[in-house]
Amino acid sequence: MKKQFDSARKRYTLCILVQDIPGVLSQVARLFSRKGYNIESIVSGATDRPHITRISIELMADEMMIEQIAAQCRKLLPVLAVKVLDSEGSIHREIALIKVRTEDRDGREEVIQIANIFRAKIIDICRDSLTIAVFGTPVKNDALIDTLSDFSILEIAKSGTLAMERGPDTIYQALQAEE
Amino acid sequence: MKKQFDSARKRYTLCILVQDIPGVLSQVARLFSRKGYNIESIVSGATDRPHITRISIELMADEMMIEQIAAQCRKLLPVLAVKVLDSEGSIHREIALIKVRTEDRDGREEVIQIANIFRAKIIDICRDSLTIAVFGTPVKNDALIDTLSDFSILEIAKSGTLAMERGPDTIYQALQAEE
Repeated sequence: MKKQFDSARKRYTLCILVQDIPGVLSQVARLFSRKGYNIESIVSGATDRPHITRISIELMADEMMIEQIAAQCRKLLPVLAVKVLDSEGSIHREIALIKVRTEDRDGREEVIQIANIFRAKIIDICRDSLTIAVFGTPVKNDALIDTLSDFSILEIAKSGTLAMERGPDTIYQALQAEE
Repeated sequence: MKKQFDSARKRYTLCILVQDIPGVLSQVARLFSRKGYNIESIVSGATDRPHITRISIELMADEMMIEQIAAQCRKLLPVLAVKVLDSEGSIHREIALIKVRTEDRDGREEVIQIANIFRAKIIDICRDSLTIAVFGTPVKNDALIDTLSDFSILEIAKSGTLAMERGPDTIYQALQAEE
């Protein structure tokens, strides 16, 4: 929108630790939309600590933008820690579920072969369709989807990108620093 | 909160197709928090159709509650289709990333063995920690995490649950019915 820093934009993931209370996700999402940041993907799930949820938000931004939004996140009351991850220093994984129509037994065989090459799993099969689950980097998953586009794809669902810092450091260090 | 239907509560996943426009996620999340529904997990990612995002929201509810919130979702302007999935008729997958401290080479070896049994992958390794990625049903992933709890877990991140209906039917049929 109004932001004009496209030259140095890259893909970042913001990892946000929050208290698991009603409305917290809506509060975080509202901050991003109010500031005009479009969220590319979001995942929110449990952690190893009770009543603490970890939200990973993926977005395209430049360094200044990402530091600004991280600082604004830290000001939200239920937010316990925020860590900015770029693609070099962190690991990214996502799931895709892909439902493919299979016209005949040959077609089904071919789809299964492609799935095997990508180490994807067939998790549901019926007379005229099968569903493949693939887990990997977004690039790998997209390569499988691209290969399958020769077939009749009925439906695709993707998780957002789940990210974690490489090496022994954790998000909990950001937590201690803020306390 | 005020809702008192605990007897017949079970885990549902609401699959919501939305137009990929800024603020849509915040609008959906706000609806849930306004109505007093606590979201167990959420994932939001791309689909096979351009400019259409699929949000999967997992929550505990009884049948009446889930139909109510689904109906309210359908009224939101950027929402194109809503499908209620229960655990029997659908497939559920999630990812967990687990960072474990490894004191010595024996400890590392043991963690790698456990990961192999669960068909999990070691996706990062350094002198005193390694990171495991596992992909499966929430129950399987929790069994791995439970087994690893004998070691020193540094950090866990979980995606929410990504769900898809079994068989050849898709969410796009709900889309046509609404048009």
